[in-house]
Amino acid sequence: MDLPFAYDHVEAFVFGGALPIRRSFDDSSVIVLPVPVDRTTSYVGGTRNGPHDILQASSHMELWDEEMGTDVHGVGIFTMPEMELPFGEMEPLLDEIERVAYEVIGRDKFLLSLGGEHSITPALVSAAARKYPGMSVLQIDAHADMRDSYMGTQHNHACAMRRSLHHARLTQVGIRSLSTEEAEILPKLNTTVFYDVSMRKDPKWMDAVVDSLAEDVYVSIDVDGMDPAIMPATGTPEPGGLSWPEITGLLRLVAERRRIVSADVVELSPIPGMVAPSFLCAKLIYKLITYRFAADPRARRL
Amino acid sequence: MDLPFAYDHVEAFVFGGALPIRRSFDDSSVIVLPVPVDRTTSYVGGTRNGPHDILQASSHMELWDEEMGTDVHGVGIFTMPEMELPFGEMEPLLDEIERVAYEVIGRDKFLLSLGGEHSITPALVSAAARKYPGMSVLQIDAHADMRDSYMGTQHNHACAMRRSLHHARLTQVGIRSLSTEEAEILPKLNTTVFYDVSMRKDPKWMDAVVDSLAEDVYVSIDVDGMDPAIMPATGTPEPGGLSWPEITGLLRLVAERRRIVSADVVELSPIPGMVAPSFLCAKLIYKLITYRFAADPRARRL
Amino acid sequence: MDLPFAYDHVEAFVFGGALPIRRSFDDSSVIVLPVPVDRTTSYVGGTRNGPHDILQASSHMELWDEEMGTDVHGVGIFTMPEMELPFGEMEPLLDEIERVAYEVIGRDKFLLSLGGEHSITPALVSAAARKYPGMSVLQIDAHADMRDSYMGTQHNHACAMRRSLHHARLTQVGIRSLSTEEAEILPKLNTTVFYDVSMRKDPKWMDAVVDSLAEDVYVSIDVDGMDPAIMPATGTPEPGGLSWPEITGLLRLVAERRRIVSADVVELSPIPGMVAPSFLCAKLIYKLITYRFAADPRARRL
Amino acid sequence: MDLPFAYDHVEAFVFGGALPIRRSFDDSSVIVLPVPVDRTTSYVGGTRNGPHDILQASSHMELWDEEMGTDVHGVGIFTMPEMELPFGEMEPLLDEIERVAYEVIGRDKFLLSLGGEHSITPALVSAAARKYPGMSVLQIDAHADMRDSYMGTQHNHACAMRRSLHHARLTQVGIRSLSTEEAEILPKLNTTVFYDVSMRKDPKWMDAVVDSLAEDVYVSIDVDGMDPAIMPATGTPEPGGLSWPEITGLLRLVAERRRIVSADVVELSPIPGMVAPSFLCAKLIYKLITYRFAADPRARRL
Amino acid sequence: MDLPFAYDHVEAFVFGGALPIRRSFDDSSVIVLPVPVDRTTSYVGGTRNGPHDILQASSHMELWDEEMGTDVHGVGIFTMPEMELPFGEMEPLLDEIERVAYEVIGRDKFLLSLGGEHSITPALVSAAARKYPGMSVLQIDAHADMRDSYMGTQHNHACAMRRSLHHARLTQVGIRSLSTEEAEILPKLNTTVFYDVSMRKDPKWMDAVVDSLAEDVYVSIDVDGMDPAIMPATGTPEPGGLSWPEITGLLRLVAERRRIVSADVVELSPIPGMVAPSFLCAKLIYKLITYRFAADPRARRL
Amino acid sequence: MDLPFAYDHVEAFVFGGALPIRRSFDDSSVIVLPVPVDRTTSYVGGTRNGPHDILQASSHMELWDEEMGTDVHGVGIFTMPEMELPFGEMEPLLDEIERVAYEVIGRDKFLLSLGGEHSITPALVSAAARKYPGMSVLQIDAHADMRDSYMGTQHNHACAMRRSLHHARLTQVGIRSLSTEEAEILPKLNTTVFYDVSMRKDPKWMDAVVDSLAEDVYVSIDVDGMDPAIMPATGTPEPGGLSWPEITGLLRLVAERRRIVSADVVELSPIPGMVAPSFLCAKLIYKLITYRFAADPRARRL
Repeated sequence: MDLPFAYDHVEAFVFGGALPIRRSFDDSSVIVLPVPVDRTTSYVGGTRNGPHDILQASSHMELWDEEMGTDVHGVGIFTMPEMELPFGEMEPLLDEIERVAYEVIGRDKFLLSLGGEHSITPALVSAAARKYPGMSVLQIDAHADMRDSYMGTQHNHACAMRRSLHHARLTQVGIRSLSTEEAEILPKLNTTVFYDVSMRKDPKWMDAVVDSLAEDVYVSIDVDGMDPAIMPATGTPEPGGLSWPEITGLLRLVAERRRIVSADVVELSPIPGMVAPSFLCAKLIYKLITYRFAADPRARRL
Repeated sequence: MDLPFAYDHVEAFVFGGALPIRRSFDDSSVIVLPVPVDRTTSYVGGTRNGPHDILQASSHMELWDEEMGTDVHGVGIFTMPEMELPFGEMEPLLDEIERVAYEVIGRDKFLLSLGGEHSITPALVSAAARKYPGMSVLQIDAHADMRDSYMGTQHNHACAMRRSLHHARLTQVGIRSLSTEEAEILPKLNTTVFYDVSMRKDPKWMDAVVDSLAEDVYVSIDVDGMDPAIMPATGTPEPGGLSWPEITGLLRLVAERRRIVSADVVELSPIPGMVAPSFLCAKLIYKLITYRFAADPRARRL
Repeated sequence: MDLPFAYDHVEAFVFGGALPIRRSFDDSSVIVLPVPVDRTTSYVGGTRNGPHDILQASSHMELWDEEMGTDVHGVGIFTMPEMELPFGEMEPLLDEIERVAYEVIGRDKFLLSLGGEHSITPALVSAAARKYPGMSVLQIDAHADMRDSYMGTQHNHACAMRRSLHHARLTQVGIRSLSTEEAEILPKLNTTVFYDVSMRKDPKWMDAVVDSLAEDVYVSIDVDGMDPAIMPATGTPEPGGLSWPEITGLLRLVAERRRIVSADVVELSPIPGMVAPSFLCAKLIYKLITYRFAADPRARRL
Repeated sequence: MDLPFAYDHVEAFVFGGALPIRRSFDDSSVIVLPVPVDRTTSYVGGTRNGPHDILQASSHMELWDEEMGTDVHGVGIFTMPEMELPFGEMEPLLDEIERVAYEVIGRDKFLLSLGGEHSITPALVSAAARKYPGMSVLQIDAHADMRDSYMGTQHNHACAMRRSLHHARLTQVGIRSLSTEEAEILPKLNTTVFYDVSMRKDPKWMDAVVDSLAEDVYVSIDVDGMDPAIMPATGTPEPGGLSWPEITGLLRLVAERRRIVSADVVELSPIPGMVAPSFLCAKLIYKLITYRFAADPRARRL
Repeated sequence: MDLPFAYDHVEAFVFGGALPIRRSFDDSSVIVLPVPVDRTTSYVGGTRNGPHDILQASSHMELWDEEMGTDVHGVGIFTMPEMELPFGEMEPLLDEIERVAYEVIGRDKFLLSLGGEHSITPALVSAAARKYPGMSVLQIDAHADMRDSYMGTQHNHACAMRRSLHHARLTQVGIRSLSTEEAEILPKLNTTVFYDVSMRKDPKWMDAVVDSLAEDVYVSIDVDGMDPAIMPATGTPEPGGLSWPEITGLLRLVAERRRIVSADVVELSPIPGMVAPSFLCAKLIYKLITYRFAADPRARRL
Repeated sequence: MDLPFAYDHVEAFVFGGALPIRRSFDDSSVIVLPVPVDRTTSYVGGTRNGPHDILQASSHMELWDEEMGTDVHGVGIFTMPEMELPFGEMEPLLDEIERVAYEVIGRDKFLLSLGGEHSITPALVSAAARKYPGMSVLQIDAHADMRDSYMGTQHNHACAMRRSLHHARLTQVGIRSLSTEEAEILPKLNTTVFYDVSMRKDPKWMDAVVDSLAEDVYVSIDVDGMDPAIMPATGTPEPGGLSWPEITGLLRLVAERRRIVSADVVELSPIPGMVAPSFLCAKLIYKLITYRFAADPRARRL
């Protein structure tokens, strides 16, 4: 912004707020893209406010990570302006998301997209798969989202991962809610499912998850994959799900043994007056970036 | 419901709760139809809960009307089950609403539809105009809703009344928010506009409104037509607008001098923890029914 | 409280907070009694928090009244501790409220009771009528509350004023919701009713209200008598009702032409996160005290 | 409902929403009975909305259970209309609940009652014990609810289980809040108590719970038995308590080794704007039904 | 922002959202400056979110003004980034606000500041008075804010206007809450007070307000000057106050007969889940800009 | 309070409500002091309501502790009135808190202070260290709070523990958020840090914590040290943190092996409509008192 005089000001809606080291798009390794699609969510509603609330919360985070002993923000975290999304046809909207996502990924950037609904994921996966053929998708979610169509459309969030299968194979973690039709079709699809109830009984589940993944991994986090105790702010908050140590532990393991090429965090539907869920999302994203870039020479160590 | 034994129970989601005199569809003059379409609302969201909350509130109303000196519920108020609305294409969805609405109106019933977004109104107006050719629409609203298209579709709530013009001419009351494009096109359309700011200066505005109407009138109430002081629970709550005495006074006058043939109440988006707006809608609907049917022989007088 | 050392502290739950001039029970003209009965309210619930929230809000009021040009708090406003109310039988509970109320009124104090539900009013009216035989009750309310019994009991809030008739005659103001049964019985009861819809058309309604009152007046304010625009925080918020200028104008007129001997404010059911309704109640009570004691020699004038 | 024409509609307030296989009362194995008694709760209030919110949430559940590998809804889940409950004397109200409960249980149905307050449980236990003499009650709860009387009545929720002892012996799980008087009397009563703090130290506590039960078991779930992390929506949310894996694990074990003959879920007091607690209750009830009827021939398997 | 590719995006936190005609700082007549000071507010808290919520709401406004028959946004409305405000000493903080304000005003811009607390106003008034000596301040407020010091500081919001007197004379409108000390000192200060209770009785009050003003006018709007019916979202919501027609009518009159040189809107403290108050502020600000610049050649007319 | 007649009443804002055994200041072992400082909190705000909400919740607790088999309230728990805190300079305010705290501690009382912000802790620690030289501080917290200054002041909550180091050495538990500057300085300060992420991997962490403590221990609980699942009501709710069994287990161990001389609970910022967090604080405080005084001869055992 071009101002004729200077004063201390707050950076509006930039991940991490006014980061001590700021970089341009070109100099940044991580590109945050807000994609507030909110159109077919069937229950509580409100995912359109998700990206906004995550960015606002992120300015209250500390930047040091005591687990990894590093502060990675120096690799460059650049936040794009929110995509403006018409409410007309879903098809061209997803095409545009795919195009913009590829503009970023194609430039060798780590794209971190903020939903919005899960229905955006197929477009993002498609862009990533163009760049990284053969990659896996790691989906953390309560729901399989494997319906072929739902409420008259194939672009509903309930179909998100079925459509993503066109572009990559899947590993699904935390699953604890599926229709009888999905239960029937699942064994025939190119997906490995880790049910929440089974994970509880298998102390080695994290290793098994990583083993199922290709070398390149796209991570899609539907926030309802986590326990509603820590994540009540979502449309269909299914009891059970991943705890904070579980989800961060899994992401760390994946980052150590595979290459995470892109990620999204979707389906946050903020509860007015309650900041904890948005704050958790901000922190989760920064943890993911930290795991991914801890070894980068620009990450600070003491 | 067929139960093998009896007990006192609450009527679930029926307008007025368990009315002392209950009638069947066939014996009822008034048919309440919940149409919770919520798909393109651009700001707060939540109109899908409107019909549900109005019906719940309505069971806490008293049935006597001290203004008209009557209790009209004996004319029969029958509540239909909520329409199930797929989220796919808007076109067939509106066709189905039109069909169901005509099933009711065509049987000489007074159809009172509960939205949901304003985008349902063109379908309802179309059904009414099929039965009552030459009728007027009286729209109470903060917004002209006269855009030709918005966010990539002609089925957005911002276009509702432009599409209704295909079926009937309009009188618009309480208008206080329009785009420059709408301001330009309005004089060329088949509509009479009563701006909120002008109404405040004309003590005869109600008479002028009625004079602009045809003999048969369809009433479409976007709740944002009312003052946000009494109706904060809507997507874009524009300051100004009709007070309770104004909206009830106008409806009474229309009922006395014209024939109201059908009506809708749309765009209620409940605020959790605040019942007053839903209660107001319930009462407003009962007032409208009372004005309309006060002279019916089945209305009770003392 | 007996403390071995001094420090500035906040007075907990005393009307007006830490008033500059504090008086003991004996030296006070006004006694505030919190009576948080909350047992049979049929809709939203929460009147038990009413007294607490009003007292908390009252500590944020200013004490000067620019309308009357006085600060009356020097007449002594003493706040009693909240009554502890068992939930067993309603009969003995009301007897105890009547006893405590008479302990206050019998000592020539101005008793100002804070509900809780309207069902406490008959006990308070009974105590006042013992002291001031022949007095009137001025009830400000949306509902007639004239049912003989409701939901299996005569002690429901819906019956409060029917039971009060045993002790005094009534003037009812702001009425805009009654059952058909009440509409039938009202003309036969010892009450004068000012319907909200009629008041709107009669610029002299306040004089007519005062004319209907005896020399001694007990004022019972069900907060739902006011417009939900300013008072949404109540169980059944009926549209219409008294504005702030109307309710304060009426109370001033009554205070000038009659003697207000006691009062209650009932049915506040706070909405979490919204302080305006509680604040209004606090201010309304202080206005009432100001009107009543403006001529007292201990009231300060400049 | 008798309609002269057809359209897709939503089933209002039926457990599971519009189940693919619908059965009549007679053909159903499970009968859901909403009993929204809300009268003596001493803190937050709002249990009257519990049944309604659970039923609304239940329509957003998936029907397949991946833990048991079955979809049991085909055994027939029939939802009765909400009981209408006068607020007069508690005694006849409980008698009526007992009568209605026995009408269901006596017809060999599995009665699943939705509260409302815990004070309804003695009536439900009484009806079940009439049919299944010698049965145990398994109570999941934070509080012993073993007071002899509380706030002037024996029908308070704080006395619910003391009164249930007249009809059956008890096993109490998750207890972490009791008065000194209850602590004294507990060892003399016909109850086995599993304190939350002890369960944490005994990996075999679930087996011990089951061992304490008779062959026939009535399950009473006060939702405050669960951890407030997952169940904040209750009147006195005591820290500690059962997690989701614990409560579902226990119910499964009981279902496998004993016969659950009836159940209730009580004391849900919804927090406006937060759906997770109601959703959890809906899912918990469906889990309970699934464990109970997994072996039924009408349950679907793949 | 420098992006290597283009896409439709949302303008983050710019008044009016993505205005069709965008201008730079230099080309803009109106400069919006967010100053979210929130440090000494004594009751509800939360004014720090005021500027953010107003800007967010403003993007949902229409730009045409049907009252004035114009769309003024073409005069250029430029939004500065939020000032970053340390919480240390109040003195240097106000000095910095004064400096930044003068940077804008000194460049012949119309500065519109968004609070934050009322304690920022003296700094803003000081900057304006430097440019426009002899100007008046028109304060719309429930409170006189004329204390000399409050809670140990002269920089409290309760002292805002007393300090502003150092820079300009005052006209205070809507006053309905003052301490006895303020009532004593007011007649001796350089201020003209319009009490809310007196305005209600004087149909000419608006003219009297304008007559009391100098040629150049700074407008300070404490949102609690308005009726809590339309503005509940503030720290001490005093009953009474200006309605929407009153506040807009007054601002129009002032704009027509005097020159408004700068303005602030302060003390909005958003209620989570309720957008109406923020929306009203956005609209009020656009009305003020419209009245002020309706005659500007860059304002569009049809 | 001196009343001329008796009645059952509720004790307003006294820890534990109306305790069966009430003692005076002099006869009490435990003194509860509400210190609602709320001035520099940087995010959500609202800690000023913390003490009030904890005390209100505490009246709904049971007094028996089933873990320790005792009811300790007989040792005397006396609640002081809330400190009145001017908003001027922070320095004299902290001096006054220190003075009042020492008035209590110097009389050999166990002082339990309720915040308010963490910025009050240095004053409380100073008072305790005067009485108990050589004592340790055990800080349970998500944040190190070890900044030297923040937002222009050394009295910000972000600096609380850095300033406490002047008076005592530290053990910090649950830490999971720190700035890079803090990470650098921490190894040079007189503090032992237990990072949340490390505690998860060390089953002996509680013993290590106790081993790090001096004989006398001051316990400072910033509620954000706990998991947001159970404690969402705080300004910066960091994911991770202590569970209920962990925090109570640690406090018990410290009480058994060391002497807890005083404590504070700070940074509760209540969420309107959600009582669980306040209730947890009340219970946590009573647990702490119970562990500390379980061996006292005045504690009741069965």
